[in-house]
Amino acid sequence: MRIKKIKVSPIYSFDEWQVVEEQFTVENNYRNETIFSLGNGYIGMRGNFEEGYDGPEGTGVEGTYLNGFFDSEHIKYTEIAYGYAEKSQTMLNVTNSKIIKLYLEDEEFNMMSGEISDYKRVLDLKAGTLKRSLVWTSPAGKKIRIEITRVIPFTEKHLAVINYTVTPLNFDGEITFLSALDGKVQNMTSQNDPRVGSSLQGPVLSVKAQVEEADFKAIVQETKNTKFLLVCAMKNQLSSHQMTAARTEDLSFRSMLGDIFVVPVSKGDKVTLNKYISFVTSRDYEVSQAELLDKAVDVIRKAEKVGFAEICGKQQDYLKEFWQRTDVVIEGDPALQQGLRFNSFHLLQSTGRDGKTNISAKGLTGEGYEGHYFWDTETYILSFFLFNNPKIARKLLEFRYNTLDKARKRAEEIGHKKGALFPWRTIDGEECSTYFPAGTAQYHIDADIAFAIKRYYDATGDRDFLIHYGAEILFETARLWLDLGRYNKRKNNKFCIYGVTGPDEYTAIVNNNCYTNLMAKENLEFAYKVAVWLKHDGVGSPYKRPGKAEETTVDHQVGEVYKKLAQKIALEDQEIMEWKKAADRMYIPYDRRLRILPQDDSFLDKPIWDLEKTPLEKFPLLLNYHPLLIYKHQVCKQPDLILALLLLGHKFTKSMKRRNYDYYEKITCHDSSLSPCIFSMVASHVGYYEKAYEYFMSTVRLDLDDFYGNTKDGIHAASMAGAWMCVVYGFAGMVAHEDTLSFAPYLPKQWAEYRFKITYRGRLLQVTVGKKGVEYRLLAGEGLTFYHKTRKLTLKEGMAVFCPNSPHFVSWLRRTRGRGLLRERL
Amino acid sequence: MRIKKIKVSPIYSFDEWQVVEEQFTVENNYRNETIFSLGNGYIGMRGNFEEGYDGPEGTGVEGTYLNGFFDSEHIKYTEIAYGYAEKSQTMLNVTNSKIIKLYLEDEEFNMMSGEISDYKRVLDLKAGTLKRSLVWTSPAGKKIRIEITRVIPFTEKHLAVINYTVTPLNFDGEITFLSALDGKVQNMTSQNDPRVGSSLQGPVLSVKAQVEEADFKAIVQETKNTKFLLVCAMKNQLSSHQMTAARTEDLSFRSMLGDIFVVPVSKGDKVTLNKYISFVTSRDYEVSQAELLDKAVDVIRKAEKVGFAEICGKQQDYLKEFWQRTDVVIEGDPALQQGLRFNSFHLLQSTGRDGKTNISAKGLTGEGYEGHYFWDTETYILSFFLFNNPKIARKLLEFRYNTLDKARKRAEEIGHKKGALFPWRTIDGEECSTYFPAGTAQYHIDADIAFAIKRYYDATGDRDFLIHYGAEILFETARLWLDLGRYNKRKNNKFCIYGVTGPDEYTAIVNNNCYTNLMAKENLEFAYKVAVWLKHDGVGSPYKRPGKAEETTVDHQVGEVYKKLAQKIALEDQEIMEWKKAADRMYIPYDRRLRILPQDDSFLDKPIWDLEKTPLEKFPLLLNYHPLLIYKHQVCKQPDLILALLLLGHKFTKSMKRRNYDYYEKITCHDSSLSPCIFSMVASHVGYYEKAYEYFMSTVRLDLDDFYGNTKDGIHAASMAGAWMCVVYGFAGMVAHEDTLSFAPYLPKQWAEYRFKITYRGRLLQVTVGKKGVEYRLLAGEGLTFYHKTRKLTLKEGMAVFCPNSPHFVSWLRRTRGRGLLRERL
Repeated sequence: MRIKKIKVSPIYSFDEWQVVEEQFTVENNYRNETIFSLGNGYIGMRGNFEEGYDGPEGTGVEGTYLNGFFDSEHIKYTEIAYGYAEKSQTMLNVTNSKIIKLYLEDEEFNMMSGEISDYKRVLDLKAGTLKRSLVWTSPAGKKIRIEITRVIPFTEKHLAVINYTVTPLNFDGEITFLSALDGKVQNMTSQNDPRVGSSLQGPVLSVKAQVEEADFKAIVQETKNTKFLLVCAMKNQLSSHQMTAARTEDLSFRSMLGDIFVVPVSKGDKVTLNKYISFVTSRDYEVSQAELLDKAVDVIRKAEKVGFAEICGKQQDYLKEFWQRTDVVIEGDPALQQGLRFNSFHLLQSTGRDGKTNISAKGLTGEGYEGHYFWDTETYILSFFLFNNPKIARKLLEFRYNTLDKARKRAEEIGHKKGALFPWRTIDGEECSTYFPAGTAQYHIDADIAFAIKRYYDATGDRDFLIHYGAEILFETARLWLDLGRYNKRKNNKFCIYGVTGPDEYTAIVNNNCYTNLMAKENLEFAYKVAVWLKHDGVGSPYKRPGKAEETTVDHQVGEVYKKLAQKIALEDQEIMEWKKAADRMYIPYDRRLRILPQDDSFLDKPIWDLEKTPLEKFPLLLNYHPLLIYKHQVCKQPDLILALLLLGHKFTKSMKRRNYDYYEKITCHDSSLSPCIFSMVASHVGYYEKAYEYFMSTVRLDLDDFYGNTKDGIHAASMAGAWMCVVYGFAGMVAHEDTLSFAPYLPKQWAEYRFKITYRGRLLQVTVGKKGVEYRLLAGEGLTFYHKTRKLTLKEGMAVFCPNSPHFVSWLRRTRGRGLLRERL
Repeated sequence: MRIKKIKVSPIYSFDEWQVVEEQFTVENNYRNETIFSLGNGYIGMRGNFEEGYDGPEGTGVEGTYLNGFFDSEHIKYTEIAYGYAEKSQTMLNVTNSKIIKLYLEDEEFNMMSGEISDYKRVLDLKAGTLKRSLVWTSPAGKKIRIEITRVIPFTEKHLAVINYTVTPLNFDGEITFLSALDGKVQNMTSQNDPRVGSSLQGPVLSVKAQVEEADFKAIVQETKNTKFLLVCAMKNQLSSHQMTAARTEDLSFRSMLGDIFVVPVSKGDKVTLNKYISFVTSRDYEVSQAELLDKAVDVIRKAEKVGFAEICGKQQDYLKEFWQRTDVVIEGDPALQQGLRFNSFHLLQSTGRDGKTNISAKGLTGEGYEGHYFWDTETYILSFFLFNNPKIARKLLEFRYNTLDKARKRAEEIGHKKGALFPWRTIDGEECSTYFPAGTAQYHIDADIAFAIKRYYDATGDRDFLIHYGAEILFETARLWLDLGRYNKRKNNKFCIYGVTGPDEYTAIVNNNCYTNLMAKENLEFAYKVAVWLKHDGVGSPYKRPGKAEETTVDHQVGEVYKKLAQKIALEDQEIMEWKKAADRMYIPYDRRLRILPQDDSFLDKPIWDLEKTPLEKFPLLLNYHPLLIYKHQVCKQPDLILALLLLGHKFTKSMKRRNYDYYEKITCHDSSLSPCIFSMVASHVGYYEKAYEYFMSTVRLDLDDFYGNTKDGIHAASMAGAWMCVVYGFAGMVAHEDTLSFAPYLPKQWAEYRFKITYRGRLLQVTVGKKGVEYRLLAGEGLTFYHKTRKLTLKEGMAVFCPNSPHFVSWLRRTRGRGLLRERL
């Protein structure tokens, strides 16, 4: 195993339900802005301080982001060629609404001045809030307690609230709040790191209007090129009625709009300011500017009526439900426990759920990768939602359906006669990749999306989605493969795919990338099966038509839907047969000497990069070596063929997996954060338990420990989902394949026990893996049949079964007292 | 054969020593600016009119260029990676010194107004001048004859002269000349065509000073980023003394400096203005601004003393000498004759000869490819000078020697532990390629340069260059190959080269590109031979050490030079042996089934692009299809393996050449102007005479007939040299390999006869190929031994030999009456 090991000392105590910062330091500020981000899948706010931050340049970035809200610029290439992506897309840093400045007479509160004591910042994973509390002794000696709670409700897409309480500890006098919106914002740009770089130059959000009414203030902004409208409204509510009138003359800042409250206070008095903030954009509603404003104002007016306490209460309820279905419990390791929960929480915070947005590589926590959506969604993050919140999973896939037309257009631009090619990176569905060898060339994105549709169906049995949305994507992606590949006489007339890049970005534009061919085969096969199934009115499942004796409901409407679809996309029976033929004859490279699957036709011929002799500071290679040097070696940034062993695990024997694992692990440097989790899972499957655990360790606290040193630019969403996958797919060996669910769990020796719940085809199943064996408990839903290793088990609702580790297999079934036993220990 | 055939109707009459335009048309203006360019290897001026051009936008570009004079900008990549070229270089459009405006009272002469008659523009290939003559009838009815001659002397690097004569034909009155320099210039920029695009935004040449003295005016300019200084000086001399004082108040143009002469004229009077112009830059002399100015003024003062007539006389003398050594005569086809001479003339005009400059892809005639130097120099253009003007050939190679340090640095940047990597495109020696898959990845540039050194030595026997300059380049390039490749156990322990791009830019980043491996082998072998030869004090030649009986002069200084060089670059004997070993074990791919050399390891596996079905308007492919689509097919932009068959012709049997020719011709679309000439030569060698002729036809008048439709952006210098090569290497089958010169001529059936002269190892040999046979005549130099096909011939100075075509080989030797017989017909 070779992972670049940065020595990390954890800066947060190992608290299972919280992330706590006990001391503010400049050196951790940037990264903590990411860690303490809040979001609800639509609004994302970095953990910036309300009063702003005066630390050295380059130690922080003020940021608020709205999922799917971007500007776009014409891309200027140094050397252009035909069919390059034409326009960039950058998720915008929007109106800064966090601003609450506090003045004690002439002294302005700031973390860099005076003295801070009793400091604590808490991201509360149960409450869904960010709290900061501290005592500030001003340079002049005034002492106050400050308590700030921020919440971005999961149930109110457009709302964010800040609750700001001040208690003077040693003085009577006046305090002043300045609560403002600042429209003068722009994205951080960086040229030096391709993983961050933004294409935008300077500010692109102009202020179109400022609205000041008695009970709210709002800024209307517009993007420069996409011409999207954005309304940010706020309403400030002060607990004290003893305030002087708002002074406006102080607010001379350009593009800024705010309220100033001067409040007479006495020692020990608590003064609270509640700031209700809303964001609404023309991407959400295609209505006039005035109507957008109305909507934004509506949100804050309603919120004020509900009040801060109740908003927090609802947030807690939402999360209670979330954790009840989602929580993975590890007994015996609070650090990992914290990591897993932190990850799950951030995934929930970052993911769009309206079918128009998705989840960017960095969530809504930073500007890395310009806020683009990648295959990370389908290959990593989807798994998490698939078994925890299938509704969100479906929304993520609907995003692809809603951008299918753009993918069709893109395929045509690239020169394909048929089919759809999904973008390697995008916000609105158009390709934004400007370096095609490691972008557009990753055709496997099509197969990944198709495979995600299959996995979604396998996990949920959602016929509606497959019939009305999934099928069309499957057909158009299958078409692309057929157009892309050719039967090659020189390879026994096998179907070969040329000039693509696989998942490993340290190898570019090759023939017969094994991962791609395997996944394309899946895509073609499933498209074929679904087409045939639909033609037959959707009886049975795509995998199995019911026998004659079986009872079936024939729904002729399904056949009609298919006919309409076939007509719409001019699909003929002959074409469907071609998919089957191509799948059957797909060329899968195999090396007889090494008895492994070569990454591509030429991969094994290249010299092996000497990872052992590469100095640690030269990682990641992409920032230290020219692509030419990297491309000409056997060196993997991330799993490529190994990923296929995971996704298509049922297709390979354990010894085949192990041989491949042994070969590819040596040449993989894990420069991608997408890498360690996959190795962990495959290591689990081939019995390399120590390695599986070690890779898991590199994944589960990747952001909490800033393992890659760039958490400041945003969380690593895919890796966060990867940690969950390590437990469920890896340690517990869960596979949901076609109509079958199975487990092959083991307990890492470092742990006393672990348990998790999954939602599968409408059932809620709890799996507890302990030292003595495994307990499966069907918490909700009709009976469920599944496999423990090779043993078939059937559970009814409320029943549990225990499968002991002892060689003599014994199990018991027990009826539990319903959901009340949810937390009952084995 | 498949060349995109644009139907061209010649617009110039077929005059063997001139290019004549008889009618001015707007639609031909842009291209004619290129065709009528003048230059002397340092200054290049497009054929713009002195009075300017008022045609529609996009139908012309005002341009003056100085070889090697550029500005540079930081390159902003859309997605950057390590080791990318950091700074652009763009040959600058410099001070416009051509301006002479003519006024008849209030009427300004302009080709777009009034009436033009008796129009003629002549590029005179013997005189080396551009002449324009016409009669202009002004809108008010005044009639004048205008005759303008422009000359940029080959013998005066820094000088250009315009002679402007006006004769009033139907009036007496005043005429006014405004002769000016304009410092407000900038490059044309284009984003749409990667073959043109400039990276510069807006003007980069600022005016630093304007100097006005009694007898000259000058503008001092400075580049924005490179901070190069440029002085452009002028001196206007009027034939008539009857002029009023220069009016300066009219010259309100910004950055402009000029003289105005108002001259009273009578009908029939000739008035002549001579404008002497000089360009001197800080790239030429590292001296102060004042000294640069002095130098520039010196040039024009001297020139004025010499006078226009004598300058023209000298120019004619220079060209007489040039043509005497260079001229290729074709009897029976004035169109081809014109093409060949036009090409030779432009090559002479475009080529730098100071060791600091080279020849850009478009010469000094346009802004295509930003004025960069490519491998075009070594692989195409060098051949022309090698056998016509070896001094210039040496200077071109010295340019590479002078940039060797930069190539060493570049190799290190790319990650090579040793060696030098020459830039794919450059002006000053630094890599400017921004798309590395079709740029920096073309490692073969190293081998091309090494091979050029070998060819230079083979043609000239210039030991001095090889010892003091060539050897170091050979060693450093050999080192690069050793570091780049690896012995591959999977390929019988052969030496393999990974991740490179060959000459064909429609295939990128492959393993074992056959051309590259073959040429690298040559490079390694020759480096080894030269090293051993130098170690042995340079006795004999690198190819052959003298036998013991032979007389040899041992020059121990050579051994010393070698020792010093070895010390300087830390070269050890072991390393030299490694070169030999790698050369011996070089992997050369071979396909047993097709019995051809595959372009690379994976090339033959890919599907073949259907060129027949590709609509004509879709060429060049690079402007109409995404690189991904192109890369995944067997389709060649230009010869790759076929080029190796030409350069290393002695290594392949005729049948092997023919099989490869047959295969690759079908998949080559000649989207590069570098393509047809190579196919012509190889077709000659394999006996496809019709094809050889047809490809030659596409080459020889490529610019005159604007075959590729982009002559407007500048001449195609490599193709111009290619036309010469088609005759000498192709039809006449000349090979100068190691110490041997040989010919295998045939006469294209369309011709009555052709003859050419070559300079070979200090001798001047004339070869005349006629219907009955071939005559070789040694015009100058000591005796020469060479081969006619397999027959060894020896000639003494002034002797000729005739080799008749008849099957019974008979030849005669005849002493001629010395050089007087130079034009004697057979």
